[in-house]
Amino acid sequence: MTEASVAAIAELVSGTLHGDGERRIVGLADLRNAQPDRIGFVRHQSYYAAAKDTKAGALLVAEQIPTGASLIVVPDVDVAYAKVAALFHPTPRASEHRVHPTAVVHPEAQIEGPVEIGPHAVIGRCRIGPGCVVMAGVTIGDDCTLGADCVLYPRVTLYHAVTLGNRVICHASSVIGSDGFGFAREGSTYLKVPQLGTVVIEDDVEIGAGTMIDRATLGVTMVHARTKLDNLVHIAHNCTIGYDVVMAGGAMVAGSTSIGDRCVVAGRVGIAGHLKICADTRLGGGSVVIRDIDQPGDYMGHPLTSMRRHMRLLQKLREMVDE
Amino acid sequence: MTEASVAAIAELVSGTLHGDGERRIVGLADLRNAQPDRIGFVRHQSYYAAAKDTKAGALLVAEQIPTGASLIVVPDVDVAYAKVAALFHPTPRASEHRVHPTAVVHPEAQIEGPVEIGPHAVIGRCRIGPGCVVMAGVTIGDDCTLGADCVLYPRVTLYHAVTLGNRVICHASSVIGSDGFGFAREGSTYLKVPQLGTVVIEDDVEIGAGTMIDRATLGVTMVHARTKLDNLVHIAHNCTIGYDVVMAGGAMVAGSTSIGDRCVVAGRVGIAGHLKICADTRLGGGSVVIRDIDQPGDYMGHPLTSMRRHMRLLQKLREMVDE
Amino acid sequence: MTEASVAAIAELVSGTLHGDGERRIVGLADLRNAQPDRIGFVRHQSYYAAAKDTKAGALLVAEQIPTGASLIVVPDVDVAYAKVAALFHPTPRASEHRVHPTAVVHPEAQIEGPVEIGPHAVIGRCRIGPGCVVMAGVTIGDDCTLGADCVLYPRVTLYHAVTLGNRVICHASSVIGSDGFGFAREGSTYLKVPQLGTVVIEDDVEIGAGTMIDRATLGVTMVHARTKLDNLVHIAHNCTIGYDVVMAGGAMVAGSTSIGDRCVVAGRVGIAGHLKICADTRLGGGSVVIRDIDQPGDYMGHPLTSMRRHMRLLQKLREMVDE
Repeated sequence: MTEASVAAIAELVSGTLHGDGERRIVGLADLRNAQPDRIGFVRHQSYYAAAKDTKAGALLVAEQIPTGASLIVVPDVDVAYAKVAALFHPTPRASEHRVHPTAVVHPEAQIEGPVEIGPHAVIGRCRIGPGCVVMAGVTIGDDCTLGADCVLYPRVTLYHAVTLGNRVICHASSVIGSDGFGFAREGSTYLKVPQLGTVVIEDDVEIGAGTMIDRATLGVTMVHARTKLDNLVHIAHNCTIGYDVVMAGGAMVAGSTSIGDRCVVAGRVGIAGHLKICADTRLGGGSVVIRDIDQPGDYMGHPLTSMRRHMRLLQKLREMVDE
Repeated sequence: MTEASVAAIAELVSGTLHGDGERRIVGLADLRNAQPDRIGFVRHQSYYAAAKDTKAGALLVAEQIPTGASLIVVPDVDVAYAKVAALFHPTPRASEHRVHPTAVVHPEAQIEGPVEIGPHAVIGRCRIGPGCVVMAGVTIGDDCTLGADCVLYPRVTLYHAVTLGNRVICHASSVIGSDGFGFAREGSTYLKVPQLGTVVIEDDVEIGAGTMIDRATLGVTMVHARTKLDNLVHIAHNCTIGYDVVMAGGAMVAGSTSIGDRCVVAGRVGIAGHLKICADTRLGGGSVVIRDIDQPGDYMGHPLTSMRRHMRLLQKLREMVDE
Repeated sequence: MTEASVAAIAELVSGTLHGDGERRIVGLADLRNAQPDRIGFVRHQSYYAAAKDTKAGALLVAEQIPTGASLIVVPDVDVAYAKVAALFHPTPRASEHRVHPTAVVHPEAQIEGPVEIGPHAVIGRCRIGPGCVVMAGVTIGDDCTLGADCVLYPRVTLYHAVTLGNRVICHASSVIGSDGFGFAREGSTYLKVPQLGTVVIEDDVEIGAGTMIDRATLGVTMVHARTKLDNLVHIAHNCTIGYDVVMAGGAMVAGSTSIGDRCVVAGRVGIAGHLKICADTRLGGGSVVIRDIDQPGDYMGHPLTSMRRHMRLLQKLREMVDE
């Protein structure tokens, strides 16, 4: 069990300590059911009453408040909470080398140092970095490369020659490196265009359950570092997704489109192929994007307009059918 | 093979028997290719001619019609058909205990009575109730609880500490308990917020193929009893889905939203986060919901309006570009 | 390694050879990094400069251009490229019989050698034609039939009694034959209607990763020959998808709808149930289809109109909120 002093936690979150820094904390707590060896958090003033009476040993809070708990005052409680929660509930990481006897591992797979490979995993002639956790039923194709500390939840499939950076998390049933949807039309039928490229997923990317990322026709489908994809997202062949992008559930990007850094794509947004979406674009839920976006900002709808205009358009459309 | 008398079937469906109740029925039949030991059903008058000449031993029908078959007259043929079809084609249920030798079962798993566990399933330190059928390649995490008579089709993944009630059906490749999509923004990057809650799926829920239900950040993502989710549905963290809800293919609900009892959500509807959708709301296909709904009724579109207004809006929009 | 003369390649693509036909070609090349035993392709005039200086032994090109390479002039470079790429990078096909020892194969399965069955596959009492490649963790239910040369990527699930024709490709995590979403409403709750039909996938169909195709209530859910489905597509029970149809990522079709031959359905299109979409219909991205379509053409939007009108409607809506 992880244990830390209140002072150490204050340092972890760059907070200001008020009260006893020596208390030992072993986990998180709900304010109302807390024990003295737990730390709680106070996001809103509505919790001040509960905070006053809590038995928690420490609290993360945005300002000093009356309570018997030690206080760690931070500018952003959410950020501090994320760090403290990750301290006590870290992402899985292999500390000792364990390969389940039912896993099928290619004899030439290069597995460096402690890696956990779960039951019925199938590991091709690939490279896996230290600390990786490969859970039950994961398939990793030949010529894949996984950096350090990746976590592949059950039933993830990596086709051949996919590259994951460090600390990449792939949730269950996600698929990386499936064939791009490429066909050449000959008369009224379609010929499959072999998909000879690959996929690169950079450091600290998280990929949601049931999310599908296709390999490039030639070249690379790229997901840059620290980007987070939710469940049931579809990234088509030859896309480039920038750094620190967030894409929510069901968002889909057609082939060869690039999404700039720090874009936020809400749920069920569809983005057509061969577009360029500039950095710092935020797209509201359900939007349909069929043109390039070259100005950062908040957009929504179909037609895609600024968020403010979109809300006015909705209002005008409502008025058209008011009774 | 299941066998029942016409009289017993009439009782099962609370129907009125006309004709011979002693006939033995062993299965369903198409009217035109029926045998005397089969039961057919007549949904519309257009089938009355075929019903007259059928060789089926019995018919489910809404009113008395001329035929040589015994008749079971019921107020709702669809409901009666569902019951009779389920009699002859019941949902799979384990009657004897069978664990495939290739399954990996935690030695401390508590498995009560007859359970079928298929090849390559991976069963953690969990509890599984009697009658459950766990098919090939299913993964069940530690601390999960399954009630009686659940059916998990191939390649379902339950993360740790997920609870299923009785008679829950999960179709292939569905995932329950994956991390909610929760991040705290620090500068231009995102910190993962550990998802420490869980998922509760109550009795008689059916979950479609490739449907994803995320665990709560803290607390519970809840799907109440008898709700039916179609394929490729996404339920985000901390949602509450009411009793007897129906959600069709590709419907998606963002975080912390609650859907009231008996709602009907059509295909590809997107519902934003932190909303309350009241009971008995019906949402038409492709709707985008960005506000609470506090009046039951039929809604559709974006802007979301009553179904009637939405149809008028579509007409007005068409007229705007008529030639 | 596949090897072919330039003349043989010219014949394969029905092209006109200019230059040395005896050169031996062993693979594809990028124009700039080519070796003399490689073939490149020139899609646009913008590559003519690179083509002039290339070291590739041969080029696929739409007209004669100055270069030291042998030329194969073809009317459609994309089609010729697809054929040549497939020559050097063919779809996987079993040439020798190999069943991985961890696969679980029903003793009565009829497997007409040579077939490759990967680790942890689970094969019911089914028929599998010669040349099929069944990868890791695939599940094939009882009474399924697979024609020749099918490829099932990892973790595909076929429920029982599904039929695949010849050369069908199913990408990872796709599911075929899951229960249709059929319920009979009794009061405020729903009774499951057993789904007793099946799914037929004809020759040369390709099914994307995470795509779900439900079995029929009674009868057949049909996907006709040569149709291509992208990732995360949902085909509900009792649909009929015509010949040579293309459906892009996230497209969804509700129950009992038929899609005519040669239709093109773009990404995230939703099509309601019980509709008929005529042959040669093309639907733009994100469209919502709630009526039959009986005239071929290009349509988009919601309301669904001709592509041209839809673009005008978007413009008019933008003008309504211009500032």
